[in-house]
Amino acid sequence: MGVVKESDILRLVQDRCSASGPRVRLGPGDDLAEVVASEESLLLGVDQVVDGLHVDAAAISWDLIGRKAVCRSLSDVAAMGGVPLASLAAVVLPEMADDASVEALCEGLRLTGLQFGAPLVGGDVAIHRTAAGPLTISVSVLGAVTPPGAVTRSEARPGDLLCVTGVLGGTLRADQTGHHLSFSPRLAEGQRLRASLGEHLHAMMDISDGLAVDGERMAVASAASFMVQLESLPRRSNAPGGGLCSPMESLRNGEDYELLFAIDPQVASEATRVLLELECPVTQIGVVKAADPGAAGLTVVTGDGETIDCDDLGWEHGA
Amino acid sequence: MGVVKESDILRLVQDRCSASGPRVRLGPGDDLAEVVASEESLLLGVDQVVDGLHVDAAAISWDLIGRKAVCRSLSDVAAMGGVPLASLAAVVLPEMADDASVEALCEGLRLTGLQFGAPLVGGDVAIHRTAAGPLTISVSVLGAVTPPGAVTRSEARPGDLLCVTGVLGGTLRADQTGHHLSFSPRLAEGQRLRASLGEHLHAMMDISDGLAVDGERMAVASAASFMVQLESLPRRSNAPGGGLCSPMESLRNGEDYELLFAIDPQVASEATRVLLELECPVTQIGVVKAADPGAAGLTVVTGDGETIDCDDLGWEHGA
Repeated sequence: MGVVKESDILRLVQDRCSASGPRVRLGPGDDLAEVVASEESLLLGVDQVVDGLHVDAAAISWDLIGRKAVCRSLSDVAAMGGVPLASLAAVVLPEMADDASVEALCEGLRLTGLQFGAPLVGGDVAIHRTAAGPLTISVSVLGAVTPPGAVTRSEARPGDLLCVTGVLGGTLRADQTGHHLSFSPRLAEGQRLRASLGEHLHAMMDISDGLAVDGERMAVASAASFMVQLESLPRRSNAPGGGLCSPMESLRNGEDYELLFAIDPQVASEATRVLLELECPVTQIGVVKAADPGAAGLTVVTGDGETIDCDDLGWEHGA
Repeated sequence: MGVVKESDILRLVQDRCSASGPRVRLGPGDDLAEVVASEESLLLGVDQVVDGLHVDAAAISWDLIGRKAVCRSLSDVAAMGGVPLASLAAVVLPEMADDASVEALCEGLRLTGLQFGAPLVGGDVAIHRTAAGPLTISVSVLGAVTPPGAVTRSEARPGDLLCVTGVLGGTLRADQTGHHLSFSPRLAEGQRLRASLGEHLHAMMDISDGLAVDGERMAVASAASFMVQLESLPRRSNAPGGGLCSPMESLRNGEDYELLFAIDPQVASEATRVLLELECPVTQIGVVKAADPGAAGLTVVTGDGETIDCDDLGWEHGA
């Protein structure tokens, strides 16, 4: 344990990131990075990982924290059907952080960006001056759209089928094998869906706060009513070799980083074909209906004919 | 005081940022923003403001914190001679933040971005779960270069003149009139210098950690020796109506957000003309000399012929 110096960390990052891909004209080390991007339209977003909220920094290896921070932001690129181009990381370190952890964090950020085509082109490091200041990481991403354009969450239409990639729930185990630390963003899946289904892919988002919360958001953004059958939700194992999580856990756990998308029913088999080619499970979980004014939202029904109130479910900071 | 909810804050930001300029095809509210940028080459960077490090959140109005966070990042755009296009903000709020402060912060971020041509197109908000977690803000910026291209910090050449915009030092007063809260990024100055001086503007960076630290960085990046005369440094008033700060304060205070640049001496009068047209003071503070291998760096000499060791000056977190 020791007091780390900003200049040492910046030097480390600069040395490692100096050659990060043909698009990077100027990498870390100057006031800004310079990236070649001939695309007319660009995607931009930022997401965060905070110790105590999204990870337990005392319990896990910090390379996994860096990895998660990059993957969370790239999951948003996947949800637009986009292609990552570059990433930036801003880090606030705890006052007492050991050098090995800091180096592992930087390498986790750097290697994960490279792995998914989003080289780390810049960043900033600060160090808390108070003992209780937690590790905080924000990762910004730059991306390009896949023709015919970015897939928003606001264009789901009555008559659409609702589908999800992968399996849901059982994601919050704190050990290093937990899905929230090991997931890969569904970039290839999002891009292939957009390229193959074109305008028939109406809306898409990634499920990060749980289907109950994010499905509601997408329904409201689309001014539509989403009807989901609880028992149709694909469920993750709760533990290696263990049973499946409950349907309610798959509805509300969060940290799934799977894609929720709404498509014209005529392309349902094409969507399945495309995703299975990528070895990605896909499940039809419901349908989109017209909503009365002010009544847009997600309704989840059980096999017993009961309706689950999604307003009280899901995971929200401070809620 | 009360527990704020992420969803309420996000709604506030989305509502306010919905119409943020002709370049913004898709603003806050989806997985990512979409920005129209026909430029072939883009500038990208991120900077942070952390309570206890860069501001005292208990002592000042939070709109000023939002303003400072945006201006710090835009100062890097200025230092490349670039034109801001869009910004992103990621915020971690203290566990107990009052609604009015949070709204002021969001408005400070939003309005400052708009003011300088970098509309806030996206962001993320999280809330600490520990009582001591400090307000933390990162702002990422996207920018375009001014022809003939981005001005780096690594191309200063022997024979160049070293100049700074504005005045230095006396920046760290905590009250609301302090320069570190009220400065405007030197965007117009950086762009006009690049456009008017072209390739004769060899290197530029913004002074955020003090001339002693940042001048050393630019000299090392340029593999050159920077010779600066201490008494030539332009000095700020220490207080309204007060005297000037000391030469040593102007060398080491930091948070100046002025431009340090190296030019061919033949364009010195043109640089002065351009900056004075913008009502921006400019001062020649030294020259660039060839450095022996491994001996690049900043040397500051006093009128008494003494040399100041800059290795121990300036301001660095954790140092």
